[in-house]
Amino acid sequence: MIYLDNAATTYPKPKCVFKSVKKSMSRFGANPGRSGYKMAVKTGEAIYSSREALRSFFNAKSVENVVFAQNCTLALNICIKGLSENGGNFVCSSLEHNAVIRPLEKLKNEGVCDYKIAGIDINSDDKTVENFDRLIDEKTCAVVISAASNVFGFLLPIKRISQICKKYGVPLIVDAAQAAGIIPLDVRELGIDYLCVAVHKGLYAPVGVGALIINSDKNFDTIIEGGTGSNSLSALQPDFLPDRFESGTMNTSGIIAVAPAVNEINKIGMGNIYSHEYSLLKLLEENLREMKNVILYTSFCDSQRLAPVLSFNIKGVQSELVALSLAEKDICVRAGYHCAFIAHKSFNTLEGGTVRISPSIFTKKGDIYFTLNCIYKLQNK
Amino acid sequence: MIYLDNAATTYPKPKCVFKSVKKSMSRFGANPGRSGYKMAVKTGEAIYSSREALRSFFNAKSVENVVFAQNCTLALNICIKGLSENGGNFVCSSLEHNAVIRPLEKLKNEGVCDYKIAGIDINSDDKTVENFDRLIDEKTCAVVISAASNVFGFLLPIKRISQICKKYGVPLIVDAAQAAGIIPLDVRELGIDYLCVAVHKGLYAPVGVGALIINSDKNFDTIIEGGTGSNSLSALQPDFLPDRFESGTMNTSGIIAVAPAVNEINKIGMGNIYSHEYSLLKLLEENLREMKNVILYTSFCDSQRLAPVLSFNIKGVQSELVALSLAEKDICVRAGYHCAFIAHKSFNTLEGGTVRISPSIFTKKGDIYFTLNCIYKLQNK
Repeated sequence: MIYLDNAATTYPKPKCVFKSVKKSMSRFGANPGRSGYKMAVKTGEAIYSSREALRSFFNAKSVENVVFAQNCTLALNICIKGLSENGGNFVCSSLEHNAVIRPLEKLKNEGVCDYKIAGIDINSDDKTVENFDRLIDEKTCAVVISAASNVFGFLLPIKRISQICKKYGVPLIVDAAQAAGIIPLDVRELGIDYLCVAVHKGLYAPVGVGALIINSDKNFDTIIEGGTGSNSLSALQPDFLPDRFESGTMNTSGIIAVAPAVNEINKIGMGNIYSHEYSLLKLLEENLREMKNVILYTSFCDSQRLAPVLSFNIKGVQSELVALSLAEKDICVRAGYHCAFIAHKSFNTLEGGTVRISPSIFTKKGDIYFTLNCIYKLQNK
Repeated sequence: MIYLDNAATTYPKPKCVFKSVKKSMSRFGANPGRSGYKMAVKTGEAIYSSREALRSFFNAKSVENVVFAQNCTLALNICIKGLSENGGNFVCSSLEHNAVIRPLEKLKNEGVCDYKIAGIDINSDDKTVENFDRLIDEKTCAVVISAASNVFGFLLPIKRISQICKKYGVPLIVDAAQAAGIIPLDVRELGIDYLCVAVHKGLYAPVGVGALIINSDKNFDTIIEGGTGSNSLSALQPDFLPDRFESGTMNTSGIIAVAPAVNEINKIGMGNIYSHEYSLLKLLEENLREMKNVILYTSFCDSQRLAPVLSFNIKGVQSELVALSLAEKDICVRAGYHCAFIAHKSFNTLEGGTVRISPSIFTKKGDIYFTLNCIYKLQNK
């Protein structure tokens, strides 16, 4: 099997992640933060290590600013809904995932907040930044942008957008689902107030682990309340982090595996991971570009501005059919809209979507050659 | 180690659960419902088996009515918030967990819905039912009750409360965190509209798995929206189940382990699990009752109306200190308020809470004798 759907979730996970999950199930089986016996304390310590791993990885101020959630979608919902409480309007990019668009649309339909979409100019960051500058003002409740498009890999100029946000005192939420673990995301250096992470993707944690990295002192309302093991005599959700946003029993064995996963990434080096994946997509693209019936949307050969995600189509063939033909050869790619229809509007691929290829650190050059061969035959039919 | 904190999460998990998680990590590593390649399809089928296992276990109408969530707290939040949309007031019991009280308190503080607490009479179900009957009327947006108190094990007369709900056309939400897997909960027979389950507790699934079993055709608003792999061209959350309430990547390996876990429970027999745990607590209680400095709150000897959770105190000693002393002997119990302060109001244990003992199917008689010996020495000091 050639797994090229790492933008959905990375597979396989590193051996240390497997080992960690196994160890957790046998040795860290308690519900942490609720009790004082040895296994509960050890489970709590292991969770703390994973918080610290993410704190350090994203340069957050303190471990308390690392909130775990079932997925990046929940992290995004927590801060989007939280920052909507005073009304106004959101500004997002034209490449957002439905995990951003659907909460925004809901707030709009409820009359809580409106939202405006800033167009991304893939040829000019200046124009993109201008588009944001035109829409952001004092009435903006927050700006929400993807660090990287999950369909086209396109990287947004976070720092420049963040500077506009700072000018107006507007919080910046970054959806790092596709970027975390692949490009550096220092929340303090980039001025990101809320970083939402699919820890199970580029950080190679088990599925079921997302995180919200908070780089702001602003306090806001919760969307989920419940037992936190803290302030138990109060009917009010605690106002301190991370408890405020972590109610109920957590996915402890998944979370505990974050520390070894991040450690592994640090050992390999994020730059090396990026170079490896980038070089594979460059190889892919160089050759796909030669195939007369293949349509490409971005270029890994010309640009250093892409996360390792490549979308393509074969003329006259539905993207789903291409993916199914590749699946018959045991090549795993995703086709369709990738839960991000507005990104397809931007790239004129609303009719049928795209076929998406996303490698990981475990993808081999041979996998790409084999895939090229299969695509070659398909488009040559 | 003697683990008697199974009301927090069961430990250990059955061998088949371990095996399932290991297998999932190596063979079901895809993000299901998004792609058509073999591993994605197989992952989706395994998730389906787990839905079917819960559907059948709780006698829900269809697999679509089984929604997975990170924990029981999220399941409770989904239906409490969802049913608040037309205003009115909730009615809950005086034994509720903070996973119920905190969302209700938040809705109250926001002016969305008020809530009223029906007192539980531990000596008379008739009086309990009267208390509910007095508070429920056409203006009640929903009734929320625990199937079993997580502190005192007390079982609520679900069917009788459900009948009052039906009389007024009021939906019934049941928090089955402590009861699922221990007492029969047939949603159709009991008339439960929304059953919230901590699948990682009495159903022995891995941590990170909760579920909402829906036995109602009512549709309501979401608290989380995002990518679902369905209706991807729409900015609106799908209105069909389970997608409506399942956004983003799920804890697939945890969820997949639900099917073998439920299968194991069915093999052992829920009645046998209950008898085993009940007999251990009866043994514990008979002997604790003889100890002059031990305070008990319920009686396993007199009643068949308790889930296998026993709370006690030692006169003049803080519950946390008792738990820490037991922890030194490698006995794992929880002390304090157990995230359920109103239950302590009902039992007059608000000052300091209680020490809680909760066995599992894996607890041995010898564990109870050893624990008794340690408590005996502690209270005899």
